[in-house]
Amino acid sequence: MRALWLEDRRLAVREVPRPVPPPGEALVRVIAAGICNTDIEMTRGYYPFAGVPGHEFVGVVEEGPPELLRRRVVGEINAACRQCQSCRKAGPTHCERRTVLGLIGRNGSMAEYLVLPSENLHAVPDELPTGRALFTEPLAAALEIQEQVAISSDARVLVVGDGKLGQLIARTLALTGCALRVTGRHRGKLDLLERAGIRTLPADEVQARTFDVAVECSGAAGGFELARRALRPRGTLVMKSTYAGDLTFNASSIVVDELTLIGSRCGPFAPALRLLASGAIDPEPLIDGRYPLINSIEAFEHAQRPGALKVIIEM
Amino acid sequence: MRALWLEDRRLAVREVPRPVPPPGEALVRVIAAGICNTDIEMTRGYYPFAGVPGHEFVGVVEEGPPELLRRRVVGEINAACRQCQSCRKAGPTHCERRTVLGLIGRNGSMAEYLVLPSENLHAVPDELPTGRALFTEPLAAALEIQEQVAISSDARVLVVGDGKLGQLIARTLALTGCALRVTGRHRGKLDLLERAGIRTLPADEVQARTFDVAVECSGAAGGFELARRALRPRGTLVMKSTYAGDLTFNASSIVVDELTLIGSRCGPFAPALRLLASGAIDPEPLIDGRYPLINSIEAFEHAQRPGALKVIIEM
Repeated sequence: MRALWLEDRRLAVREVPRPVPPPGEALVRVIAAGICNTDIEMTRGYYPFAGVPGHEFVGVVEEGPPELLRRRVVGEINAACRQCQSCRKAGPTHCERRTVLGLIGRNGSMAEYLVLPSENLHAVPDELPTGRALFTEPLAAALEIQEQVAISSDARVLVVGDGKLGQLIARTLALTGCALRVTGRHRGKLDLLERAGIRTLPADEVQARTFDVAVECSGAAGGFELARRALRPRGTLVMKSTYAGDLTFNASSIVVDELTLIGSRCGPFAPALRLLASGAIDPEPLIDGRYPLINSIEAFEHAQRPGALKVIIEM
Repeated sequence: MRALWLEDRRLAVREVPRPVPPPGEALVRVIAAGICNTDIEMTRGYYPFAGVPGHEFVGVVEEGPPELLRRRVVGEINAACRQCQSCRKAGPTHCERRTVLGLIGRNGSMAEYLVLPSENLHAVPDELPTGRALFTEPLAAALEIQEQVAISSDARVLVVGDGKLGQLIARTLALTGCALRVTGRHRGKLDLLERAGIRTLPADEVQARTFDVAVECSGAAGGFELARRALRPRGTLVMKSTYAGDLTFNASSIVVDELTLIGSRCGPFAPALRLLASGAIDPEPLIDGRYPLINSIEAFEHAQRPGALKVIIEM
């Protein structure tokens, strides 16, 4: 089959063997895959991965359980043992023995076929177009915040970062009715938020010691510091970006202001699919470009342009 | 009156005017004051404070509300406006306009007299000796952890640090019945814990990715890293030390393992007094030395010796 292949930070489109699903796993013919910032960071060497990249996809089950056969599906990316202490205490996304689609020990979605445990797959409702369903995985990651932190309707919430993930996070938080502000650096991205009815403000207008919750999804040390300073005493800082290298911060301020920092990663697929199917979240304005698999390298170049949003690879 | 005075990092015993309580405040004749690590750090210039240091004390009310007059009292150290947004949202310990006994804009307890808002004072039960009541403030700080994090009886909890605060934290956590371990660097301090029925272990025997909760009270960057590594995915790291300068850490591990970091400072006095009065917590073995006020400088020298625990100044 045709696949995008990453090795030694280099991407190439090549022919590789079609995967054979082991027991408990399904064979999925990929329709489309999305490029995430983590994929881009892998091409810069931030993660040691060799193989097919990509963890966002919509596909059709070609081999698998009868109830999913020939259906469009999306898939949770962590393949877990469901037996280790971490699986039992922290859930399968934290399995100590996990492989992760296109990220850890398992080929990803930027290929004509992929395999995943059948239990990871979710059928896409017929009325939900593939272009929207492709946002299930990042939207689930955005919803993880509300699995971890109760957002009350009178909460003052700041999102730091207007990129792909920040756009989705802002849209999920807006649905709580909280007093939401988003700050970012890209005029076009902030305009997109404003058009979705979400209020934005420049970084230098973020009031210190004001917000109950701040979500850091800029991936920059400066964004972390901005989020920290924006919090009131006993506020909560949600860390949604992975950072290359170490982060340095004023730890005494965390103690004196009794702040809570909480790391946030993968989230629940079922509510993400419901919000997309109902139209409560419309991610289509975030699609910035579509490329056939053969032009994947061009797609990655596009995704790295300043101001770029979601770029999709179609098989 | 006689007082210990801190200015430009130098301590001196000198005569200063006896304070006059403003409306709403009480005049307290100090019986004894405890030396906390924060007091020691102030003499090293980590906090910009000039005046009478000290925030741990037991005293007798000489001017104040009738129900407290001539009674022994301990006192909460934050004098708050109770009107600002932080008071209302995060409580009086976080008041934006607060003064703090012996720490911010208010003379402290290492003197013959102090003043504090009457509402900050708590009567000491008659059966509770002064030497034990002196631990109310740091014990309250230890109990703040349980105000912030629910410690279930089957939780695996690690305390990193065997110093004054670590000793009290360990004793409060032991009362929950959780599976508790304490790690530290001082044989004598670890022996004290063992004698109190608390299990200890050397740092190099702390198993990675095992504990549900880790409490960092060593004040060292190495202690923070040890606590972080000890946590299972979705574990909670309680930051109980103030750190001089910035702290550098692997932020990606916080995100990937979805850890929670929570800063923890001042705590509730009422349960601290109850635990001391009932004998459930016996802090007497932690008393390392007693000095008259005139010998306060010697007391500070003692408190800075390796392995030293609580040193008390008596008026």
